Amino acid sequence: MIHIRVLVPVTTTAVRQAGDVEHLAQPGVRYSIAFIETGPTSIESRFDEVFAVPAMVALALEAEAEGVDALVIDCMGDPGLAALREAVSIPVVGVAQSAMAALSSLAHNFGIVSTSPSTRGIFRDLVAIYGHERHFVGARSISIPVLDLKTHGSELHAALAESAIVLVRDLGAEAIILGCTGFFGCAEHIRERLAALDYHVPVIDPLPFATLMAAAFVRHGVTHSALSYPKNPRDKMLTGYSLPR
Amino acid sequence: MIHIRVLVPVTTTAVRQAGDVEHLAQPGVRYSIAFIETGPTSIESRFDEVFAVPAMVALALEAEAEGVDALVIDCMGDPGLAALREAVSIPVVGVAQSAMAALSSLAHNFGIVSTSPSTRGIFRDLVAIYGHERHFVGARSISIPVLDLKTHGSELHAALAESAIVLVRDLGAEAIILGCTGFFGCAEHIRERLAALDYHVPVIDPLPFATLMAAAFVRHGVTHSALSYPKNPRDKMLTGYSLPR
Amino acid sequence: MIHIRVLVPVTTTAVRQAGDVEHLAQPGVRYSIAFIETGPTSIESRFDEVFAVPAMVALALEAEAEGVDALVIDCMGDPGLAALREAVSIPVVGVAQSAMAALSSLAHNFGIVSTSPSTRGIFRDLVAIYGHERHFVGARSISIPVLDLKTHGSELHAALAESAIVLVRDLGAEAIILGCTGFFGCAEHIRERLAALDYHVPVIDPLPFATLMAAAFVRHGVTHSALSYPKNPRDKMLTGYSLPR
Amino acid sequence: MIHIRVLVPVTTTAVRQAGDVEHLAQPGVRYSIAFIETGPTSIESRFDEVFAVPAMVALALEAEAEGVDALVIDCMGDPGLAALREAVSIPVVGVAQSAMAALSSLAHNFGIVSTSPSTRGIFRDLVAIYGHERHFVGARSISIPVLDLKTHGSELHAALAESAIVLVRDLGAEAIILGCTGFFGCAEHIRERLAALDYHVPVIDPLPFATLMAAAFVRHGVTHSALSYPKNPRDKMLTGYSLPR
Amino acid sequence: MIHIRVLVPVTTTAVRQAGDVEHLAQPGVRYSIAFIETGPTSIESRFDEVFAVPAMVALALEAEAEGVDALVIDCMGDPGLAALREAVSIPVVGVAQSAMAALSSLAHNFGIVSTSPSTRGIFRDLVAIYGHERHFVGARSISIPVLDLKTHGSELHAALAESAIVLVRDLGAEAIILGCTGFFGCAEHIRERLAALDYHVPVIDPLPFATLMAAAFVRHGVTHSALSYPKNPRDKMLTGYSLPR
Amino acid sequence: MIHIRVLVPVTTTAVRQAGDVEHLAQPGVRYSIAFIETGPTSIESRFDEVFAVPAMVALALEAEAEGVDALVIDCMGDPGLAALREAVSIPVVGVAQSAMAALSSLAHNFGIVSTSPSTRGIFRDLVAIYGHERHFVGARSISIPVLDLKTHGSELHAALAESAIVLVRDLGAEAIILGCTGFFGCAEHIRERLAALDYHVPVIDPLPFATLMAAAFVRHGVTHSALSYPKNPRDKMLTGYSLPR
Repeated sequence: MIHIRVLVPVTTTAVRQAGDVEHLAQPGVRYSIAFIETGPTSIESRFDEVFAVPAMVALALEAEAEGVDALVIDCMGDPGLAALREAVSIPVVGVAQSAMAALSSLAHNFGIVSTSPSTRGIFRDLVAIYGHERHFVGARSISIPVLDLKTHGSELHAALAESAIVLVRDLGAEAIILGCTGFFGCAEHIRERLAALDYHVPVIDPLPFATLMAAAFVRHGVTHSALSYPKNPRDKMLTGYSLPR
Repeated sequence: MIHIRVLVPVTTTAVRQAGDVEHLAQPGVRYSIAFIETGPTSIESRFDEVFAVPAMVALALEAEAEGVDALVIDCMGDPGLAALREAVSIPVVGVAQSAMAALSSLAHNFGIVSTSPSTRGIFRDLVAIYGHERHFVGARSISIPVLDLKTHGSELHAALAESAIVLVRDLGAEAIILGCTGFFGCAEHIRERLAALDYHVPVIDPLPFATLMAAAFVRHGVTHSALSYPKNPRDKMLTGYSLPR
Repeated sequence: MIHIRVLVPVTTTAVRQAGDVEHLAQPGVRYSIAFIETGPTSIESRFDEVFAVPAMVALALEAEAEGVDALVIDCMGDPGLAALREAVSIPVVGVAQSAMAALSSLAHNFGIVSTSPSTRGIFRDLVAIYGHERHFVGARSISIPVLDLKTHGSELHAALAESAIVLVRDLGAEAIILGCTGFFGCAEHIRERLAALDYHVPVIDPLPFATLMAAAFVRHGVTHSALSYPKNPRDKMLTGYSLPR
Repeated sequence: MIHIRVLVPVTTTAVRQAGDVEHLAQPGVRYSIAFIETGPTSIESRFDEVFAVPAMVALALEAEAEGVDALVIDCMGDPGLAALREAVSIPVVGVAQSAMAALSSLAHNFGIVSTSPSTRGIFRDLVAIYGHERHFVGARSISIPVLDLKTHGSELHAALAESAIVLVRDLGAEAIILGCTGFFGCAEHIRERLAALDYHVPVIDPLPFATLMAAAFVRHGVTHSALSYPKNPRDKMLTGYSLPR
Repeated sequence: MIHIRVLVPVTTTAVRQAGDVEHLAQPGVRYSIAFIETGPTSIESRFDEVFAVPAMVALALEAEAEGVDALVIDCMGDPGLAALREAVSIPVVGVAQSAMAALSSLAHNFGIVSTSPSTRGIFRDLVAIYGHERHFVGARSISIPVLDLKTHGSELHAALAESAIVLVRDLGAEAIILGCTGFFGCAEHIRERLAALDYHVPVIDPLPFATLMAAAFVRHGVTHSALSYPKNPRDKMLTGYSLPR
Repeated sequence: MIHIRVLVPVTTTAVRQAGDVEHLAQPGVRYSIAFIETGPTSIESRFDEVFAVPAMVALALEAEAEGVDALVIDCMGDPGLAALREAVSIPVVGVAQSAMAALSSLAHNFGIVSTSPSTRGIFRDLVAIYGHERHFVGARSISIPVLDLKTHGSELHAALAESAIVLVRDLGAEAIILGCTGFFGCAEHIRERLAALDYHVPVIDPLPFATLMAAAFVRHGVTHSALSYPKNPRDKMLTGYSLPR
């Protein structure tokens, strides 16, 4: 049984509840979930990420010590991905990175439907670091704050579909990534709305997809490269933070 | 139960036997395999690919008609990938493309250990089409013809490890792809040889990894984009070839 | 007298007749033409190309054996270009590649006026493989199937001009390539229509232009690089195909 | 009088002392300096950066509130640059970014002489985000830990010069950036060593150079773009951190 | 006292008067100015530049002989930048290059507000040579000839602001460069017009900004790389031109 | 009969004699040649080019007025190419640009064998402006000054072959451009030397090849794009230069 832990880089359960992982079921895999206790209530900018990442590192170290097989960062900014990979040896999967990688193999390019315009810098930085400039056509914001997502049922669906249509029709996107793990469960609806316009394109729901990739890495016996993410020796004093050894 | 079919673009079983798929086991997935009956005995150039692809299209159409869930092309040239995707709606996974995509998410870049220097043009074309120039550091040939692979046990292992070491140490590769599905089963050995030199890098065995990706796509309900690979109407006379309707 | 052979990758004379080569006259060059006998009636996708290329390889081998000086592939998908270059030593000129190369030296960039939207994947792949991303602004389809071209006199001209104008005015193209060799003879009309709007840009008619390039290569004593296109040893069994030795 | 504050993202004065800013003198500018109180003792990886940045944000907010005119981040990883720019409106200058920008205008490309190999990921990420791939030839490590720098007088000079020579002679660098602000004051020595080999190239000492750029921005009345770095609304609960309002 | 000389590549004072340098004041720097006596009255194309550059080389050689500390080329085409750098050892600053470099560090990208459409080729060439393709979103012309600039007070301001707005709103520019040193003094107005639309972006006035960069280079003791711009031996007969030794 | 004029941007006949054009014979084409009277004796840097180009513009205007059909610039720096294209409507062919364009269609990439290291900046600038970064592997200098070329028979051949071998074997070039039109006639020798090492690659002799391209453009009825090279209105006073009207 592969054990995947979802690390949630926010301090509230407004958008993600522990029970959500039950919907991630795949054969031979069990899930657990952990939330940070210090940090922001949601992540919509590079500013917000700063305060989520220290606690994420601690969660990653704990999970590895417990024998978890792989980690998934539950936020489309992949906050702390490089640092977590420098901290632990088990695969750490960024949901944005795995969605982008997968779509680079299913479509000529992709667009991202995002929450607020303030996330634009996040996606740009990720695309540049991951080397997906050729595949990225742009992000389109629905202008609904993350913390309001749960209360926006059909309105959310409509806004996401509208943005996805703009990305495909006007910007030339040939695949879509849901740009926030708070959009969990919305992919099917968007796929149908696009298909109704004869746009038959893959739509990735980043959190569940990342868990499939994480399981694939575990089964294949691979993890992130230690040449790309050198293991941190942890030999330095770190005032104000206490990490598990 | 997900049904994945491995399509083998060569006419012999010198390198791939039907029984090989038994080693691909993952929970919830069953495998079948099909070989082309017209075409080359091995693929080591763009010339060879030309004669393998027409029969591959036929195999793909048959598989879809039978209800197979996903197809994997068992050759690192991904021969016919675009044409097969224009032919069928179920996911068609190229082993090269899925290995490159995966490593773009686990390492800064990758190198390919290949059979003969004549494959260089194949990898260059794939890297350009897939948009992985930023990730690709180069291919390194072991100069053993594909059809001799089965008879080269430890010599093959040594040659592969040697080439992988050159890619990492001298060309700066931070991950390795086995550049031929005939190297099936060799990844672990290379990973160990590299690790002994303190190069802890992921090594992808492209066929088994591609089947993991194929299952992930099926589970996530996505297939290749019909905007990137428009479905062929099949309304044109095709002299000399008879395809399943 | 230089002998150039035009290789036509379709099985009908609906669009190209043997007599067309008479219009290609340049001093010191004579032309011959050969059609494939197995394959599709027209090429509008990567699917179609698959079935044209095996017979193209045979035509190329025959032509070289006959002492032809250079080959031109009469289709804007350059079907089989790499394989033909691996098969023969005389220059093989792809009409798309030679048009793109020429315009990279006459204009900052170029756009392509194409037949149907299904060709988009073809042009993208070529641009990526040839390394012309910086020069390519996009393709614009007239949505007339190839096999209907001959019956569309002035309507064809109008559609081509309209698409060319969109490419220049709205997408910023500064030169135009006719995206199908079935548009043979239409360049002058489009050039005039563009010039009437004060867009004085080169318009390349790919087949005649490619024959000029082919002659230039023969006169200069150069052919494709054998490092880029290694000569195929032809030492492998090829079931179902019989190629000239 | 322009007031520039140097923000030091480490908790010790082992490498940087408050008095160092006295050497930054330029007409019309006065300097102050601030150290973080929580975080690491030195920064040599993306892991280390995580724990320095929260306190850097606080220092930036305080400085802006005090009326400081511009901020300089005293570390070649530019830790927190985007977040600080989202936090304050006064110019925030990253020493790596300003050195790269300057050299993109004085030389065809540049190389970086760095402390330890673990910093490689930092420079790669910065180069990708800043868009300097065309200018960056690579980094070369001297393998002296940051915290040992002060105790390595002539040995440090020799190691730096040696690495700079390798970058120029073997990797083709045409300008050099000192890859750690702990190398403060070493530029002249390296310039001379290179010049003795007839390599007359600019060598940037990143901290003092960044303060010159910061003053230039203040004098020109420009700061970072609020479209690239949207101002953070600070409307979100941030558990475990208390930032100045 | 640093001595910076502004070299003006036109033969008239219609746009630039000697007194303009008085507005460039920065502490510790004095300015002088020199005009070419042979060449064009204004520069709006690569054609015009040809005739300005020989005299610019002479001015540069004279200035260096006089002991000037740095040179600034007063034209957004940076005419003769490479040649002047091959001629003299003191820093030669191109106003376009320094503005682009600076904005690459303050914003994700930039657009240029230019005089006439004929300057487009100039900017493209500079962007390509300097390696700023990733940062450049395009130029937008106001269609006022350079020699009419002085007589277009508020009309000029309005036209510049209008073009800047188009660049930001429609083309996605996140910073603006005034594309002609004849726009000297207009930056503040444009910044305000953009800010009124909530576009808070840096606007660079290239001549004054370049003098700030020139002073920074002098203070830091750096000049252009002699590997990128090899010093010309001046050992060749030059018919029709007489340069200072 | 097509009339092509070779424009020689140097003031001496040390390297190029009028009679050289007799070796350029191709059917249906006649040649003339013109030398500048003011300017340098040879071109080996961007500094040298400055003084050659004004007279080249005059030669181009004269040639067009005389009814010449196309111009070829006889120097691998393509000095003045953009300006000449802005001056005249007949095709102006740069020998470097046409060689690079041609090889982009015959090989994966190319290297340049150049005279002196001081030409490096020239080639870099051209490659960037023309958009051939993907195709260019680098230049390799033989360190023989242009003006000594005629006196270096077999020594020149040996030096060129040696550099070409280094480019192919060590830098991965798959085609070669002679980097100076003073190497006229040496291509065959280098091709043979490379072939003897089993490197069967195209070698372009830039002047004769450019005349073949020029004739092809004339026959095809195309010239450079007026959108890329807007026609200069010639309405501006030009002190110190007198151009033909």
